[in-house]
Order: sequence, then C-alpha cells, then structure tokens
Amino acid sequence: MSEPITIALDAMGGDNAPHIVLAGANMARQRHPDLRFLLFGDSAQIEDRLRKLKGLSEVAELHHTTDVVKSDDKPSQVMRSGRSTSMRLAIDAVKDGRADGIVSAGNTGALMAMAILVLRTLPGIDRPAMTSFFPTMRGESVMLDLGANAVCNAKNLVQFSIMGEVFARTVLGAPQPKVGLLNIGSEDIKGTEPLRQAAQILRESDLPLDFQGFIEGDDISTGVVDVIVTDGFTGNVALKTAEGTAKLISVFVREAFRSSFAAKIGYVFAKRSLDKLRLRTDPRRYNGAMLLGLNGVCVKSHGGTDALGFATAIGVAADMIRQAVNRKISDQVAQIAGRWAEEKAQAAVS
Amino acid sequence: MSEPITIALDAMGGDNAPHIVLAGANMARQRHPDLRFLLFGDSAQIEDRLRKLKGLSEVAELHHTTDVVKSDDKPSQVMRSGRSTSMRLAIDAVKDGRADGIVSAGNTGALMAMAILVLRTLPGIDRPAMTSFFPTMRGESVMLDLGANAVCNAKNLVQFSIMGEVFARTVLGAPQPKVGLLNIGSEDIKGTEPLRQAAQILRESDLPLDFQGFIEGDDISTGVVDVIVTDGFTGNVALKTAEGTAKLISVFVREAFRSSFAAKIGYVFAKRSLDKLRLRTDPRRYNGAMLLGLNGVCVKSHGGTDALGFATAIGVAADMIRQAVNRKISDQVAQIAGRWAEEKAQAAVS
Repeated sequence: MSEPITIALDAMGGDNAPHIVLAGANMARQRHPDLRFLLFGDSAQIEDRLRKLKGLSEVAELHHTTDVVKSDDKPSQVMRSGRSTSMRLAIDAVKDGRADGIVSAGNTGALMAMAILVLRTLPGIDRPAMTSFFPTMRGESVMLDLGANAVCNAKNLVQFSIMGEVFARTVLGAPQPKVGLLNIGSEDIKGTEPLRQAAQILRESDLPLDFQGFIEGDDISTGVVDVIVTDGFTGNVALKTAEGTAKLISVFVREAFRSSFAAKIGYVFAKRSLDKLRLRTDPRRYNGAMLLGLNGVCVKSHGGTDALGFATAIGVAADMIRQAVNRKISDQVAQIAGRWAEEKAQAAVS
Repeated sequence: MSEPITIALDAMGGDNAPHIVLAGANMARQRHPDLRFLLFGDSAQIEDRLRKLKGLSEVAELHHTTDVVKSDDKPSQVMRSGRSTSMRLAIDAVKDGRADGIVSAGNTGALMAMAILVLRTLPGIDRPAMTSFFPTMRGESVMLDLGANAVCNAKNLVQFSIMGEVFARTVLGAPQPKVGLLNIGSEDIKGTEPLRQAAQILRESDLPLDFQGFIEGDDISTGVVDVIVTDGFTGNVALKTAEGTAKLISVFVREAFRSSFAAKIGYVFAKRSLDKLRLRTDPRRYNGAMLLGLNGVCVKSHGGTDALGFATAIGVAADMIRQAVNRKISDQVAQIAGRWAEEKAQAAVS
C-alpha cells in the first residue's frame, strides 16, 4: 500500500462549515483509504460531530482554534492579523511539512494571499494560478488562471502554460496535452500585447509543449485543446459566464418539460437519462480549484458546496499529491531554465 | 404610414452570399413593408435571382460592382484599396444619405475599419462598440463591447454605458434600464484600473443612468441588469464562451435522449416543447450585432447565417433607424457634456 497522505482542512471555511467539511472528509476517506486529516477549527463545534463519524475520527487529528476568516474579511487585513485563524493554521501545517496539502472552502482572496505568503511560489514561477477542470465535448480540459491574477504579463502566461501542461499530463492523464491561449481571434495580430508576446515565446522556444496557438471562447467547450491559458480576469469571466449559461439552459429545458401535458409525459420516460445528464454536468463534480505554482498543494472548494462537493475537492488535492504535480512542475521549469539562454528569455519578455 | 426606410446591403458579404442576402431581404420586406433596399454586388450573380423575387425587386435597386472584401482580407489593406468593394459602396451610401443604414455579413474587421473611417463616430463618442442582445432568465439584455476594442479606457466604458442605456430604453423598451460593469467581483477594489475608474465616474456623476455597479459572468444570464458593459476583449470571450456552453449542453441533452429506449419514447412526447425551446435559443434570433456610436446605422450579420438570420439583422437595423437611436445617443451625450464641467471629466479619466 502507498504512503498515507495527510491533508490539512480549514474546518471553519465555507457557508456550511464545519458540518460539510466533516461530512465531506468522511466521504473522501471512504473513497481514499490512504487519507489522514488535520482539522483546524472550533472544537466546541467539531468534537461532537467528529465523535459520531467513527471512521473519520480514527484518521483525523483536531487542532482547536476559535479564530476564523470571515467571508467578507479583506485579504490584506487577514494577512496581518489572521495568524491564529483555522485557515492560516491549516496552511502553516503544509509549510511545516505536517501536512501534504490543504483544502479550504473559505474566503478565496484571503486563502490566495495567505497561501502565497506562507508557502511561496515554486522556483521559476512568479505567480500562482487558480486552476480548474471544464467539461467538454471530448472529456475534460484544464483552464488557468481563473482569478488569482487580474492582470498578467507574457512571462506569467508562459509559466501558466507549463504548469497547465504538467497538470493535464499527470492528473488528467492526457499523453501529450495540447495548449491554447484564449484570445478573440486566431490570427497572430489579434488580442492584447501580453498574449501576442506569450504566443511568440511559446512558438519560438523549444519548450517540450504542444502549443496550438490562439483559441476563442467557443473552443473551450469543444475540447480542441486540453489546456486553456488566460489571465485571471478573462478566465474568471469565462468560467462564470459558462456556469451562468449552463444554468440558463437548464431552466429553459425545465420550462419546456412543464409547458404541455405531452411534454410532462415525455419527462417521465426520459427522467432517468436526464438525471444521468444532471449528474454529468453537476458542478459538485468539478468542485475544487487548485492554486497551482505554490510550494505545497492548496485547493479552494466552492464556499456554498455540500459534503459531496467538498469530498471532490479533497480528492483533487489527493490526486495532486499522489502525482507529485508540484515536483514535476519544478522539474519542467528547471529543465527549461537550463535550456533557455537567460538573455533570450529576458529579451523576449521584457 | 411611416416614412420608408432605405437599407444598403453588402450583397456579397458572408459565406452564402449573395443568395442568403437576397432571400433574407425578401423575408425582411414581408415583415417590414416600409423597407427599401440598395443592393451592392455582382449583377451577374444577383440579377437573375432578384428577378425571381418579385416583391423584393420592386423595392430594391441594384448597384453593380465585382470587387469584394474576402473573409481573410486584412482590414488595413481593405481600407487602402477596397474603395469599390460591395461593402465599401454600401457604407458610402449611408455616408451620402442615400441609405439610412447598412447591413453586411462580410469580414468583421474590414466592416468595422471602413465604417469607422467613412461614417466617423458620433460627437462625444471616441470609439464605437459592437453591441448585441443576450437571452436571459428575465428576457433580453444588451451587451457591449463584443470585440471592436480589445483594450478600453475608463472613458470608453462610460461612453459604452450611455450608448447601451439609450439602446435598451429605445429598442428593447426597458423603461429604466439597469447598467452593470462586467468584473470579477462586486467589491470596489476588484478588477482592472479602467473598470474601477469607470465605476467611480458612473457612481459620482449625475448621469441620468441607473448604474448598478459591478456584475460577474454568471449575472449575465440571470438578467440582473439590462445593459452589460465591458471591453471588447472580455465581451468577445464571454459571448463566445456562452455560445460554446449552450452548444455543449444541447449536445449533452441530445445524447441523453438517445441513451435509452425509454428516453427515446420520452423524446417523442416532449418533441414539440423541445422544438419550441430550440426556437427560443435559436442563434438566428439573436443575429445582427450593431456597431453603436457611429454617424449611421451599421449592423454586422454572422457570416454563416441563413436567410432567416439575415432578415433578423435587417430588422435590427430597421429598429435602430425607426427609434432614431443614434440621435438619442447624441442628445444624451450632449446633455451630459453640458452638465459636466469639462475639468471634472478630464480629472476623472486622465
């Protein structure tokens, strides 16, 4: 059997904490018997619940703190005065090597700020990127950055391409992931300056990476590339627009099935298949955004998710740890740094 | 009866020109009996077809040219040497007052470049914005810019807000349109510098405009605002991501109905309602993006549309002309310019 994996959990983060954190950890433990947990949070709210989850309590260690990051706390303020919060203590556990990764459903801005401060970025990586899966017509793709960096330069985008490629290869299992830069046209002259520069670097360098050039918004869901690279502003808007559109269409479909007697009968027959479809596009299946590029595995769960969604986020962290994604990113970056003449890189991006 | 409206058509623009242009004009004429057309294109390809469309030939005037803008022509090149193309001659007709507006399904970049060059922007408007409708849970919203300007400053975004508001009020008939700026969070500190500046101007000015602050990608389809303002890069990605997601979900739904015998039976019962739904989300119903902010009505049809879609685009142009949208935008801008102290505006945006 493989080495046990220890995950630090911010037990107080998210709309329904600590309940869904504990229930989610319990689910994850059943799926992944090699998991151990460090729970950080208010023992008055956790102890009784934990005692009832027999299997979980055997593999979890509770660390008491009453201090929490609230959903409307400003990241800058949390960085200064949040040293004893459940979120920060969980991150510290990764820093100190007591845990292999951390999962939190709490305040996104605070989590990013503290994780960057405490864990620092991997050598050769300037900024981490919020990364997640997308369902596509061909399976799943990876998209980054989804909001960690509103503004990105060409160097950031090149680093995101490398990180995304390693992630798709190791965690998604794509043998040779195709990488595309999200733009508003496929011609070389399209888009912003950082995008054009990044494309030039990716095209002209001898990176061991299958760069497909620019893609457009409607290419995301066709799965024409495995890795979609973009700045955090555009990525966040695209992610949320896709979520909103999916919701809109399901509302329309639901209305269609209610619009006539025949349609209602049709629904009865098709219900099983439609339920399966709902499962296929269930946002809980895609819960858990990785903050890629840090010295440590850090996964952000959606704040409003339930136990199933939180268990998925824990699973994502476990996969990253098992696949040693961070070490592979470092290796890749080091290899590239060695290959590139420093001057060439400097000249191209500055 | 109202004054007749004359629309100049680039008969050679689009994947299936001139066929769908003529068929579309013929459909539009049946819906809008007050329409007249100037057709610009190759008479060898048009004359016979036109003769067969009796009703259309009575209200259309053919202007022969064999020169066309190809779909891969560069805008800069077309601006220099495209003076006798069907697209350019149609734009010239608006400039000279022979037509009230122009519709083309041709090369988007060339159309924007030539329309801006020939028609110029309205007084007080620095850049035009590609504008279109979006279906939402509450009806329809307007979004701009969808790709005319990859990079926008705060002043552009404020001007787009005014243009979008006037459009929603006059063409969509929203009594007091709500306006939102597309961002990656609703807090004041979120997003790029131009967005924060634009929000400040819209908030602090005494513009007669219901500014709702920042919205996020998933708010587009809920219809929480009537006008979504964004730079052309973000708007284009959001539009295409929404289109791609809608397509993905329809593929998933289709697969669900084929996945079992019961589901196939269900489909038979629900077919009528599902067909209606397809009609409701039919992209042809949303065809026709307005290039708002020019001295003249200019509508871009999707290049791959059919006659029905092209007729919709003509209808959009007719609505803009009937509602005198451009004059109302000018009035609004002039009113604001008068109200604002010039210094104040300068200080805020520079």
